[in-house]
Amino acid sequence: MRAAAQCLRGVAHRTPRITSRTLDERAGVRAVLKAELLQRTGSFKFRGAYNKIASIPPEQRARGVLTFSSGNHAQAVALAASLLEAPATIVMPADAPELKLAATRGYGAGVVTYDRYSQDREQIGREIAEERGLALVPPFDDPLVIAGQGTAALELVEDSGGLDMLLAPVSGGGLIAGCATAVKALCPDARVIGVEPEAGDDYQRSLEAGRRIAIDVPHTIADALQVTTPGELTFAINRELLEGIITVSDAELVEAMRFAFERLKLVLEPGGAAGLAALLAGKLESRGTAYIGVILSGGNVDWGRFCQLLGTGTPASAE
Amino acid sequence: MRAAAQCLRGVAHRTPRITSRTLDERAGVRAVLKAELLQRTGSFKFRGAYNKIASIPPEQRARGVLTFSSGNHAQAVALAASLLEAPATIVMPADAPELKLAATRGYGAGVVTYDRYSQDREQIGREIAEERGLALVPPFDDPLVIAGQGTAALELVEDSGGLDMLLAPVSGGGLIAGCATAVKALCPDARVIGVEPEAGDDYQRSLEAGRRIAIDVPHTIADALQVTTPGELTFAINRELLEGIITVSDAELVEAMRFAFERLKLVLEPGGAAGLAALLAGKLESRGTAYIGVILSGGNVDWGRFCQLLGTGTPASAE
Repeated sequence: MRAAAQCLRGVAHRTPRITSRTLDERAGVRAVLKAELLQRTGSFKFRGAYNKIASIPPEQRARGVLTFSSGNHAQAVALAASLLEAPATIVMPADAPELKLAATRGYGAGVVTYDRYSQDREQIGREIAEERGLALVPPFDDPLVIAGQGTAALELVEDSGGLDMLLAPVSGGGLIAGCATAVKALCPDARVIGVEPEAGDDYQRSLEAGRRIAIDVPHTIADALQVTTPGELTFAINRELLEGIITVSDAELVEAMRFAFERLKLVLEPGGAAGLAALLAGKLESRGTAYIGVILSGGNVDWGRFCQLLGTGTPASAE
Repeated sequence: MRAAAQCLRGVAHRTPRITSRTLDERAGVRAVLKAELLQRTGSFKFRGAYNKIASIPPEQRARGVLTFSSGNHAQAVALAASLLEAPATIVMPADAPELKLAATRGYGAGVVTYDRYSQDREQIGREIAEERGLALVPPFDDPLVIAGQGTAALELVEDSGGLDMLLAPVSGGGLIAGCATAVKALCPDARVIGVEPEAGDDYQRSLEAGRRIAIDVPHTIADALQVTTPGELTFAINRELLEGIITVSDAELVEAMRFAFERLKLVLEPGGAAGLAALLAGKLESRGTAYIGVILSGGNVDWGRFCQLLGTGTPASAE
């Protein structure tokens, strides 16, 4: 992970840590937020994508890279590939947020769409990659991707002088696997807890069952957290390092997005708000003195979609 | 100003500097943004308020402080006073954004409202202050307030290794007077340019006339920039140090707010977007290699108001 941090130095942003007295009072905690929504391409995904693509030998890079992604990893691969001069092909769900599709194309990548609810993106991706001789950049189930994502927590621990707990969203499990590895290495007593949407609790069920369980594509507003089963490698790491998983409802995600907008002045996408939602909804046992790190993982959300989710009738402050 | 920086150390946030390749490409510049919307109380005003109140002798502080403000300075004084254990009374316009009124009360201050378009806030404020023996904390026309605000630019120059130009919003002129003082001391060749709403161009007219000109209360969406005449002290500083003033329309402010939301993931209030609006609207002569600092001065805007301003019909990315 130190090697990943070295690889990302001067390329990825060292995103700011944010504290808020209002948040601490509201949630009854002492929290420090890692603003990965301010990372390049609007989410932590740039860390893993760049670290992975940088490791591909130049002659292979020149032939090109391919990935499949619900959106944030797509943008990350598109930008990282462009910085490293590798042509990129991205397999994305046809119903991905317009902003994510447009941004991915804007970074110069070729986009192939598929139907999230009926087609298997991995199969499509692997077929195209083989056909065209492209290197695969997996969205989460890869040691170099996981190491890249973990640098977010590495920075947060370094900048905060230690943590008692870390909360991070869970989809395929790459972010939290990397973060847990970093946190446990630097603060062995710290507890690491993942946060999933209620409707997409495949990781919670899998940890409880002790094996990877697959669910149907979850219907949740958190488009970034719609993966249906834990990664193989991420699961092996997370079952060792995580204390557990908390789930949050779509309504709790929206409340967290509203709080972030009005009090933190930050734009969070639904999935990026999962950790904050767990705090605000009181899902942790109260522990006033613990120092809790929270990864705000992404902010890629259309303005139109944001309005739809938060509603426009009543100013929140008047509620 | 170094003394102000010392006074604020560990109390005010050292706010992050933000860069965006998308912004640079869109505006044809190389920009570095100072995210003062992430400052405590949501705007740069906390710097000056705290620096000023900290300088008041303890026995006077204990009797209390008073200020008049369109909102951001109000919240800043309320929080700074509370941290320094001084009771605070704030004279605010009755039509100030609900979020600003609520936040000011939330920090424990007493609020007295007045009609922005018919009553003189300074007179009301001075009367109450005299009657109750309260120390006045002016919103801009005060050396310690100006020095506090200038620490925003001091940090930006330090963190950026020098600037060729600085853009900052102008209302009473305290922010830009402090920032210009810092920038000119550290980078004597740098140009400092203020940005005002078209409807509230009192500073531009005053600089052109060489004397302070008063206008009617401007009708603009930038509620933080509705001051009607330059401060006496700020004008004396700014006429020496500023290269000039650029004005932006309300529509240009809205476009900048939209860009900040979708691409920077930051919530800007209309007045806080003035510098960014000037960049995006192409109001500077093109200078591709100049390194331009921009103060994003505040983010205190109701969710309902934000929707009203940006409209909700069409996702921007589809336009």
